[in-house]
Amino acid sequence: MKPLLYSYWRSSCSYRARIALNLKGIDYDYRAVHLVKDGGEQLKDEYLSLNPKGEVPFFVHGEHKISQTMVIMDYLDRHFDGAKLIPENKNDRLTCLQICELINSGIQPLQNLKVIKHVVKTFSASDDQKTEWIVHWINEGFVSLEKLLEGVSGKFAIGDTISVADCFIVPQVYNAVRYNIDMNKFPNIKRVNGNCLALEAVDKARPEVQPDAQ
Amino acid sequence: MKPLLYSYWRSSCSYRARIALNLKGIDYDYRAVHLVKDGGEQLKDEYLSLNPKGEVPFFVHGEHKISQTMVIMDYLDRHFDGAKLIPENKNDRLTCLQICELINSGIQPLQNLKVIKHVVKTFSASDDQKTEWIVHWINEGFVSLEKLLEGVSGKFAIGDTISVADCFIVPQVYNAVRYNIDMNKFPNIKRVNGNCLALEAVDKARPEVQPDAQ
Repeated sequence: MKPLLYSYWRSSCSYRARIALNLKGIDYDYRAVHLVKDGGEQLKDEYLSLNPKGEVPFFVHGEHKISQTMVIMDYLDRHFDGAKLIPENKNDRLTCLQICELINSGIQPLQNLKVIKHVVKTFSASDDQKTEWIVHWINEGFVSLEKLLEGVSGKFAIGDTISVADCFIVPQVYNAVRYNIDMNKFPNIKRVNGNCLALEAVDKARPEVQPDAQ
Repeated sequence: MKPLLYSYWRSSCSYRARIALNLKGIDYDYRAVHLVKDGGEQLKDEYLSLNPKGEVPFFVHGEHKISQTMVIMDYLDRHFDGAKLIPENKNDRLTCLQICELINSGIQPLQNLKVIKHVVKTFSASDDQKTEWIVHWINEGFVSLEKLLEGVSGKFAIGDTISVADCFIVPQVYNAVRYNIDMNKFPNIKRVNGNCLALEAVDKARPEVQPDAQ
């Protein structure tokens, strides 16, 4: 059966899932969920009845429904053919998963739409303060990420083999660039991101080429 | 070789790692890192030279150094004996990992010490606003967690077998109780937490019985 991905073009977590699906060569249906229009389709009853968490991506494969990107990655690697995205080698696996979690729990949650909305509502944050908040957390996380990549990265995050770490890095850099963060401060991240974007699988996952891109 | 855990008694992420280590029956050395005293020992050069991210827990096993709890769990399950904490069964694994990530990326990052400090500094948040911020994110996450536990939880998060999901739930409930969240709103979470706390392995991991508890 063909998997189905609920996605929003600009959601960095959806972008991660799209890259992984393309890298594994998995054909999937795309269902757009507009996160901004009319207060957000993800918060309407129709979507909430499907995914009570009200977030994208949401991956459906037969009876299986998954709403966390790390778990989607684990599922894809275990139940679909194609190159493994999570390395089995002890050292590579440790570094790869630490890179993923640094972004997954250390950067993205602090600068996602839901949190920004709450910051604005609670503290009447101005546009400048909103941007400063986002830039602060991406910068702080990228300092650590750059250090993690030192010594282990090659063409990609883990040597010259693409992995799940790259699926997390590219969308986070996309957000960084959106907020004018100078990527020259992070040469390893910048190089890895550039090499990833040159791949067809990553190119096809870009926000701008999704059906719901604006 | 005996593993070493850098930990702070009240850090919920350190608490997760302590539970997992005890459940696996792994003997480890405990090294306290005081997160509050003098601006935080985790931000001093001595600790940063070891773990540049300046966070706890930090798990050292021979040449391997790990600073993300999800990755510590994966490592313990793959390289130590004892009951598996991450289920191999397809459905159980999916639910278990989604529970972990809901807490790991959806709740904890928004209410940890570093973020609270930044909220206070950036928006001159009062003590009441600080507490409201914390309570908001725990409540929001627990609504989703309670739904996830419905139908799958028994004595523990995944049926009657303890798993890595429980290692994440107990410390998050500890934080909820600290901020006076009424756990009667979340009967499944409350039951699972109570059953976990009755286990010796969990009891020994409690913040109050750690060497650095105050």
